[in-house]
Amino acid sequence: MAAFPRPEFTQMALIVQKYGGTSVGTTERIRNVAGRVARFHAAGDQVVVVVSAMSGETNRLIGLARELSADPEPRELDVIASTGEQVTIGLLAIALKELGCPARSFTGAQVRILTDTAFTKARIVSIDEETIRAELDKGTIVVVAGFQGVDAEGNITTLGRGGSDTSAVALAAALGADECQIYTDVDGVYTTDPRIVPEARRLSTITFEEMLEMASLGSKVLQIRSVEFAGKYKVKLRVLSSFEERGEGTLITYEEDTRMEQAIISGIAFSRDEAKLTVIGVPDRPGIAYQILGPISDANIGVDMIIQNIGHDATTDFSFTVNRNDYAAAMAILREQVKEHIGAREVTGDNRIAKVSIVGVGMLSHVGIASRMFRTLAEEGINIQMISTSEIKISVVIDEKYLELAVRVLHRAFELDQPPQAV
Amino acid sequence: MAAFPRPEFTQMALIVQKYGGTSVGTTERIRNVAGRVARFHAAGDQVVVVVSAMSGETNRLIGLARELSADPEPRELDVIASTGEQVTIGLLAIALKELGCPARSFTGAQVRILTDTAFTKARIVSIDEETIRAELDKGTIVVVAGFQGVDAEGNITTLGRGGSDTSAVALAAALGADECQIYTDVDGVYTTDPRIVPEARRLSTITFEEMLEMASLGSKVLQIRSVEFAGKYKVKLRVLSSFEERGEGTLITYEEDTRMEQAIISGIAFSRDEAKLTVIGVPDRPGIAYQILGPISDANIGVDMIIQNIGHDATTDFSFTVNRNDYAAAMAILREQVKEHIGAREVTGDNRIAKVSIVGVGMLSHVGIASRMFRTLAEEGINIQMISTSEIKISVVIDEKYLELAVRVLHRAFELDQPPQAV
Repeated sequence: MAAFPRPEFTQMALIVQKYGGTSVGTTERIRNVAGRVARFHAAGDQVVVVVSAMSGETNRLIGLARELSADPEPRELDVIASTGEQVTIGLLAIALKELGCPARSFTGAQVRILTDTAFTKARIVSIDEETIRAELDKGTIVVVAGFQGVDAEGNITTLGRGGSDTSAVALAAALGADECQIYTDVDGVYTTDPRIVPEARRLSTITFEEMLEMASLGSKVLQIRSVEFAGKYKVKLRVLSSFEERGEGTLITYEEDTRMEQAIISGIAFSRDEAKLTVIGVPDRPGIAYQILGPISDANIGVDMIIQNIGHDATTDFSFTVNRNDYAAAMAILREQVKEHIGAREVTGDNRIAKVSIVGVGMLSHVGIASRMFRTLAEEGINIQMISTSEIKISVVIDEKYLELAVRVLHRAFELDQPPQAV
Repeated sequence: MAAFPRPEFTQMALIVQKYGGTSVGTTERIRNVAGRVARFHAAGDQVVVVVSAMSGETNRLIGLARELSADPEPRELDVIASTGEQVTIGLLAIALKELGCPARSFTGAQVRILTDTAFTKARIVSIDEETIRAELDKGTIVVVAGFQGVDAEGNITTLGRGGSDTSAVALAAALGADECQIYTDVDGVYTTDPRIVPEARRLSTITFEEMLEMASLGSKVLQIRSVEFAGKYKVKLRVLSSFEERGEGTLITYEEDTRMEQAIISGIAFSRDEAKLTVIGVPDRPGIAYQILGPISDANIGVDMIIQNIGHDATTDFSFTVNRNDYAAAMAILREQVKEHIGAREVTGDNRIAKVSIVGVGMLSHVGIASRMFRTLAEEGINIQMISTSEIKISVVIDEKYLELAVRVLHRAFELDQPPQAV
């Protein structure tokens, strides 16, 4: 037991651990999770465990609802979907007791994870951490249902897909935990997806800002809201594998000065869930962006990249990207509500695109990064359709069929397969 | 819609309806339940619907827990098992909305079905009916999870198998409902199980006391606790089929004077879940019954029939029956803790027995009922091992292999296949 690595803690710590659906996908795996939690508990740590529904369960439950209605009431969807996590907390508490560990399960409502009333995508407002702290002080392992909360009127709410990460981070923040450990089916954050680039390397640390970009750019390791939440409360966040006994995973850091040993580019993120829409021949006058995007926003469709080309002949072309699932709806809005209203010539779109991004703190202060990226893609004959930059990332939209190729050549061009060296 | 029979109500009523696991076993069946509820709602009734878990779901959930522990923590079992009903309430509310009916689901905790803390077999203490009444007054159909409650500390509790019947009756009592309708897979209470006696007849009414005996004696139609609860608060209880559009089911009545048209014997109940234990050669002195049954009770094993034969040679034989599941445990207690302690000669037992009972209000005032029962069995060569009587029932224990035969011949002997006549 003592041999188990408890990264960085030399004395008793308060640790929040989160296990995703795959990690608790069977009773056998739940038993494994219980074993890991028990070792931390035996080492003297106070442990709060946040769990997801067993893998497949949330989809099964929502599938039942969809058999009854194409557009099920969100409040009732949450009542149904929240049961997935409730089953897991009970099972994990039983598995822990079987190992002789005092353990107690809590639903989101029972520890008053208070949210707003935005059913199926609620946001956490506050957590009453007193109940949890009292249990921890008694030596109990506290098992909390992820993904769920309760609104001020006592309605059950859920936080949206991947919300268990957010639950864990919020609990860590509320409790002032020493570390929030996200156990998943990968053993950390990689320079890019190893399924596409086998040479991809695990990062031992990544800055909060980079992680935020990686998450927002399609890395599935952490849900972006949980990273935002962690950053707001400076929660020490670590990504680890639930299937390996050893390994320190990837620690998300908040200090830039720890990055001396880091390469300029930390990783390459990508997303296939993209679609592009372009309004052609838009009269070039103030307020056009609002007139185009207002109706899109009213339909609750999120917009990612926005590009407006410099106008010629008093008109301009206006392009933006949305989630691929929203493509048809966005196209209908542009064609039916927007086009004539603003006097545009044409509306076109493409839902076979992908976004590839290079991410790295301080990259803009290093000359040549952007040009190296563009040259690398040009050499492979990959046409860049849109470009967007920020302090720590450069994203390009390309034809979806070039996605894997682009990720591989960029990974090599920025030497991400090499161990990092001082810059 | 107007053609749908709303038994006995000529104006708007407040009805509690309960649908069991088979009635909500698929989304298709949930849709059917929604249709029935909607018709009552359309007729102007206020409707509270109590539902069980989809059939098989509770077993599946408890099976998961048992994969992790042979003796799972009861508190956590309740956390897990209660999700079954929670899924159904959400699905039914969605199905009702799909029909254009305002509906809202509530867990046991959300309508404060307050229970004691006896996890897996909790008893209802009180119900805060205000939330429900406010929803009903708005015209909302209120869908409540059966089988579950919450204790004073906010822990989730369950009421034990069949507890949804009790939930429905308790809600009907708390709300002062005009009727509590239990929809099940049979269309009422029968003179005996039609699978054994095809000529078995549906009773249009049955007295509360008879129903209580029928339930306690093995009739699976209603859970005994729900009948007790109904009697305590004089809840008008009706058993109906959820698979038939018509039919008035069986009404449980509280007035004896409605029984003029009723046969003396209402029905024949039976149970296979029985086992008999006998302590032979017990010294015949005061306190022996307590010394034998005390340790059984301490082990939380319920005892049904108890018979002590008149002693000869200063010893006596002491027999009792328990649920068949408790047979091995009870036998071990008698052999290891009781036998030597009280100086008994031997402990024997038989777990291949069955109990058959005839039930009828006022039967004891009619001479010849008991003798007709015993003669009927004797004529078939069926040996009676134990006899127990009450105001409204006579029960006998027989060899299990004669069970079907005994039920059939008694059904015929008491002319239960004939329509009732005035006595």
